Amino acid sequence: MKQLQEKILTEGKVLSESVLKVDSFLNHQIDPALMQAIGEEFASRFADEGITKILTIESSGIAPAVMAGLVLGVPVVFARKRKSLTLVDDLYTASVHSFTKNETNDISVSKAFIGSEDVVLVMDDFLANGQAALGLVDIVEQADAALSGIGIVIEKGFQTGGNLLRGRGIRVESLAIVSSLEHGKVEFLEEEMVR
Amino acid sequence: MKQLQEKILTEGKVLSESVLKVDSFLNHQIDPALMQAIGEEFASRFADEGITKILTIESSGIAPAVMAGLVLGVPVVFARKRKSLTLVDDLYTASVHSFTKNETNDISVSKAFIGSEDVVLVMDDFLANGQAALGLVDIVEQADAALSGIGIVIEKGFQTGGNLLRGRGIRVESLAIVSSLEHGKVEFLEEEMVR
Repeated sequence: MKQLQEKILTEGKVLSESVLKVDSFLNHQIDPALMQAIGEEFASRFADEGITKILTIESSGIAPAVMAGLVLGVPVVFARKRKSLTLVDDLYTASVHSFTKNETNDISVSKAFIGSEDVVLVMDDFLANGQAALGLVDIVEQADAALSGIGIVIEKGFQTGGNLLRGRGIRVESLAIVSSLEHGKVEFLEEEMVR
Repeated sequence: MKQLQEKILTEGKVLSESVLKVDSFLNHQIDPALMQAIGEEFASRFADEGITKILTIESSGIAPAVMAGLVLGVPVVFARKRKSLTLVDDLYTASVHSFTKNETNDISVSKAFIGSEDVVLVMDDFLANGQAALGLVDIVEQADAALSGIGIVIEKGFQTGGNLLRGRGIRVESLAIVSSLEHGKVEFLEEEMVR
């Protein structure tokens, strides 16, 4: 998605060969117009899938997911990273390790909001090692729902998550796939430049 | 806001005389079309304020804030409840006690995203004791930015937050003000029923 790639090139900060910071439009400050364009792009790519629900994870997945949900006309559920006092019973839970934060969190989703009749689009802001996405897929499987695919805003193509998920036969659509952050420079996979 | 009140009456669950659960459309599952209507309502109420930025807090504030930001054409910044490894320097921080969760968190916002030139609309999903809103107002003051007001989706009018904030001369716009949750029944302030 060209508009997203240009935003990454203009505003993204390469902190190391593995860390791309996009706090100015996605992870801390949010650009609502860009989120709308992202939502429309995901809705377009998954238009014929009969999706009934989008599942994402707090916090940075929420904005793109809600915009995609608006266009697709379906509700969005965000998994919580820990239980709150008003949400303790009847949960699907999965364990997710974050290599960035070096910690493992339980994520949970109320059983009230995903069921066996659902066709679910999993969404997240970043795909790196794929742990968060796998946790969400785990929850879809626990719910006995159908998984339509995974929509990712930015995939770090040089990390293992994409292969891990695609190797399981899951359709993964990433709007920007970063192939390298070497020498402080963002490079994208060619096929994505063409799209 | 009538559409919101009807949603609360239809789907809200009164768990006690102080706890209203709206997990089916705001706090866990999100209704994107309702969020769009909420965003339009906030944008309309604050249309003439020259707002340059919306400040909210993860996670449930993000969806309504992004929709308001889309209509107003301004970026949204969400305060984080704890520091992440890629976001440690140059932060505004404030301490926020949650009576629901019985814990105190630091919230933080990067200094890069709010400055003295900004006119800020603070937004949140719920207003109860006002602690989260006060923390966000504290950050606006640290940034030496102008505070336009506070936009709240659901105010619990029988708790102290609304008086606390309005008593400081802050404009607080709540789209639904719950006056009572007694006997398992949601009642709204009359003025809001008329609007």
